[in-house]
Amino acid sequence: MLRTNTCGELKLVNKNEKVTLSGWVQRTRDLGGMTFIDLRDRYGITQLVFNMETNPKLCEAARKLGREFVIKVTGEIAERINKNLKLATGEIEIVVNDLEVLNTSKVPPFTIEDNTDGGEELRMQYRYLDLRRNVNRDNLKLRHLMAIETRKYMTSQDFIEIETPYLIKSTPEGARDFVVPSRMNAGQFYALPQSPQTFKQLLMVAGYDKYFQIVKCFRDEDLRADRQPEFTQIDCEMAFVEQDDVLNAFEGLAKHLFKTIKGLNVDDFPRIQYVDAMKYYGSDKPDLRFDMKFVELNDPAKGKGFQVFDSAELVVGINAEGCGGYSRKQLDKLTDFVRKPQIGAKGLVYIKCNNDGTFKSSVDKFFGQEELNRLAKQFNAKPNDLILILAGEKNRTRKALCELRLEMGSRLGLRDPNVFKPLWIVNFPLLEWNEETQCYHAMHHPFTSPKKEDFSMLENTPGEVRANAYDLVINGVEIGGGSIRIHNKQLQQRMFKLLGFTEEEAQSQFGFLMNAFEYGAPPHGGIAFGFDRWVALFAGTDSIRDVIAFPKNNAGRDVMIDSPSAISDDQLKEIHMRLDFNE
Amino acid sequence: MLRTNTCGELKLVNKNEKVTLSGWVQRTRDLGGMTFIDLRDRYGITQLVFNMETNPKLCEAARKLGREFVIKVTGEIAERINKNLKLATGEIEIVVNDLEVLNTSKVPPFTIEDNTDGGEELRMQYRYLDLRRNVNRDNLKLRHLMAIETRKYMTSQDFIEIETPYLIKSTPEGARDFVVPSRMNAGQFYALPQSPQTFKQLLMVAGYDKYFQIVKCFRDEDLRADRQPEFTQIDCEMAFVEQDDVLNAFEGLAKHLFKTIKGLNVDDFPRIQYVDAMKYYGSDKPDLRFDMKFVELNDPAKGKGFQVFDSAELVVGINAEGCGGYSRKQLDKLTDFVRKPQIGAKGLVYIKCNNDGTFKSSVDKFFGQEELNRLAKQFNAKPNDLILILAGEKNRTRKALCELRLEMGSRLGLRDPNVFKPLWIVNFPLLEWNEETQCYHAMHHPFTSPKKEDFSMLENTPGEVRANAYDLVINGVEIGGGSIRIHNKQLQQRMFKLLGFTEEEAQSQFGFLMNAFEYGAPPHGGIAFGFDRWVALFAGTDSIRDVIAFPKNNAGRDVMIDSPSAISDDQLKEIHMRLDFNE
Repeated sequence: MLRTNTCGELKLVNKNEKVTLSGWVQRTRDLGGMTFIDLRDRYGITQLVFNMETNPKLCEAARKLGREFVIKVTGEIAERINKNLKLATGEIEIVVNDLEVLNTSKVPPFTIEDNTDGGEELRMQYRYLDLRRNVNRDNLKLRHLMAIETRKYMTSQDFIEIETPYLIKSTPEGARDFVVPSRMNAGQFYALPQSPQTFKQLLMVAGYDKYFQIVKCFRDEDLRADRQPEFTQIDCEMAFVEQDDVLNAFEGLAKHLFKTIKGLNVDDFPRIQYVDAMKYYGSDKPDLRFDMKFVELNDPAKGKGFQVFDSAELVVGINAEGCGGYSRKQLDKLTDFVRKPQIGAKGLVYIKCNNDGTFKSSVDKFFGQEELNRLAKQFNAKPNDLILILAGEKNRTRKALCELRLEMGSRLGLRDPNVFKPLWIVNFPLLEWNEETQCYHAMHHPFTSPKKEDFSMLENTPGEVRANAYDLVINGVEIGGGSIRIHNKQLQQRMFKLLGFTEEEAQSQFGFLMNAFEYGAPPHGGIAFGFDRWVALFAGTDSIRDVIAFPKNNAGRDVMIDSPSAISDDQLKEIHMRLDFNE
Repeated sequence: MLRTNTCGELKLVNKNEKVTLSGWVQRTRDLGGMTFIDLRDRYGITQLVFNMETNPKLCEAARKLGREFVIKVTGEIAERINKNLKLATGEIEIVVNDLEVLNTSKVPPFTIEDNTDGGEELRMQYRYLDLRRNVNRDNLKLRHLMAIETRKYMTSQDFIEIETPYLIKSTPEGARDFVVPSRMNAGQFYALPQSPQTFKQLLMVAGYDKYFQIVKCFRDEDLRADRQPEFTQIDCEMAFVEQDDVLNAFEGLAKHLFKTIKGLNVDDFPRIQYVDAMKYYGSDKPDLRFDMKFVELNDPAKGKGFQVFDSAELVVGINAEGCGGYSRKQLDKLTDFVRKPQIGAKGLVYIKCNNDGTFKSSVDKFFGQEELNRLAKQFNAKPNDLILILAGEKNRTRKALCELRLEMGSRLGLRDPNVFKPLWIVNFPLLEWNEETQCYHAMHHPFTSPKKEDFSMLENTPGEVRANAYDLVINGVEIGGGSIRIHNKQLQQRMFKLLGFTEEEAQSQFGFLMNAFEYGAPPHGGIAFGFDRWVALFAGTDSIRDVIAFPKNNAGRDVMIDSPSAISDDQLKEIHMRLDFNE
């Protein structure tokens, strides 16, 4: 028996009990005649005490213990003289009479403390030490709890978790697949799923009615800061549903998680049309923790002789309340911000609403006080407000103003990570035009159904067709997205054609799905949530790496196990492959 | 709104309510003026009725519906005249006044019935139709429920589910890995995990104390009848434990599943030494639903002039109670059985215990009545029993007698699938000698710790060293296995050396784990359960395919999606590979 109790549970009521504990040496303190050790395990910290007078040999041994040594001690629980009420076990200590070193430890390359001195690269290399830190343990516990609560809720709603295969078929459309050479089928490959999309649709055809799965998915993309080659989805699908049924079902899940994990009762989520989100926030994932809606100014701003406005497709602004006192320097900084290449605006027009009712603007030359007043009224601006205006091509200008809005929100402290503002974006466009390839791409994916009322536009103005597609957005982060699917073979074929598939390509890649649609496929739809991202949001961290036990770096490498790595010639031969670096 | 209710919930109390249902047409019956349709969904079957007199147009439409059409109906709930009390909804029917065909269906290639007319190949190709059958739906529901109860129990015991990576590193030792070429790291490969073994050990080093995960694992093996290239494990690990702690913890899980899933209270599981299991059952996974223990007969059987016994390393038999009346023909069949190549015995000796107290044996020539009586006494044989004896090389003879024992158990109806006899096999050998490679292999895996008391034999008689390893066996099926691990770098190095690793190989493949052992690795151990197999056992089926939504066939192919398949030259180029069929 290596322990009778954990390091997090002993209290004053246990006084005088004889216990055995095991754990790690967090800290050692020698106070002359006494040596104190903080013994740590997953559950907490318990103070051990060794007395030089009563047991000098044991005390000597204790003094030799290094940080992160693993020990087993037996002793009696005593009441502490100096109680530490911040610690769950802070009223007691163990007077040790037996000590066994279970394992030694080299000095860790960084401190195992909340504020560690280790850089990210080093911590990733020694991830098993990094994971000993409270913040990481709390994040992984949160992740476990969110998965448990998700499964509990989904099961209570009659959903069945069904495992779909990981070795599937490569469908090069969309993101890049990871492929797996088959040894038994020479020259052929499996692919790892980018999502269980087609399988969950087949489960609907199979009558499973309500499916979910917490499942790993894989995408071989060039990794941006917050992407991982493998990531986890809460994947869901329902039969006999329309868009509202799906939104209601998963608003239920989200509310359950807010309630059980964060202790929050949240209101019904607003449902915002995609076009409105773009118009008022310049984004399909607006941060609604603050208002600062866009105001379009083409009518009042054009025709005053200011060339930038006059030639712009869109003149649009926001009102930063209470920022009327911004200095020249502060305004220049904002101009620099919007001019950054990743923001891409050419310049920034401001209107300061002075406290005396007058206005000061960077376009005073073209706009008199009355005209500035007229502009300010569009924003319901009050004295001491600051109006910020961008102009140019519509989409680019909206995007830039969206960034400026978020920046102002941050500066004004309006983006509290403990406040959550969830919403649905609905009625996305079905297609988006790709300038590069000169053809339409599916905005969501090729299985998303167009709105019935927009069917007639499919041939002539496909770009205007809206989809039965929706996203769940929380605090400016896209947490999930889904759609009502096509369940009719002819419509699916038409969709593939629109997306530039030949009939043969469509058949060879997705023939099994279209065949299935011929045997009584029910109307169905679903959603998938980015589980890593949702956990990160609830953990209050910006990076999904903080909530993944063993993440990979930006080059897709696991630096701890040193993977990927070379394989043997025998292994290559068995899978009928040869390396080929001549590209 | 596609439905107000499901097809499984309406009862007499709902009489006169107006409802909308959606589902599949299971069966249509025309009874002159009336047409009845059984409407099916996941939840049940509800009878629809169409009246030719009151609504001839609708009734005509109903008559045109084919099997597996998907329809939506609205109507009023009425009390049935001919109640079907076998059906949950059998007291009511829906008098339909509105019918919409949501989707048509071709005639399915096999009947969607419990006793289908479809062969396995066809059902696999149309798995989405096969999955509509009750037996498959019940199996997948059982699987979901077992996963839910497993998670519930493990969480209640303070285990945390932690996701480990799927893209890891190839370690060719053991079974063959599936590998995944890396595009970003030219010439390098990830491997899919055969199990999360090293990661769960690192989690113990990281202080997570109690880990579990229901997780997919991958092995590129030539598939036998009941193997799949991807399969699911309940993977578990605990820190600060000895063998008994692990057995107690997971006996708890097994009892919880017996209780909640099968409604059974099972006794404490016997713990049987590996050597005893081999001696008394000829197997490390004995079926304990019946006794029929082996009795070794070297002493009484040798030296009577019967060459087969005299030259055998082992003479061993079983007593088939009540089979003393077996005919010549039945005995010949048993001899044929043991002579089958996969059983491998040369012949079978029997002793019939006649009702008059005499004996009849195939070796009467060498054994008189008294000597036969002496043999029979070893078995505590009673009149009308049948003693069956094999002789030869020890291991092969035990294996053959094990098969014969199972065969006799089946013939005697002693292997009821509704009776469950779980047990632990403990103290496996650490190593097994491989004749082919002329070196030792790890019986469990290289991370398994030898018994402390056997350390001294590691150098000179490694084959006799016992391991802290254990299996959970139920009804002759190995459901899980695990061990207490090595947590000391030097011992781990010594183990790799014993297994024929060079120092470089050990370092390059498992250096990260041995490094981790230097930073305060706690004693730890764990277990992994074959989830597919456990579900199959509880479902009462022999094949794990029956409890997997989308299984692969014996060639590792998914015949429904036609995978694996060729990939494009561009894809090959991107992963820096070329096909190479010259072996």
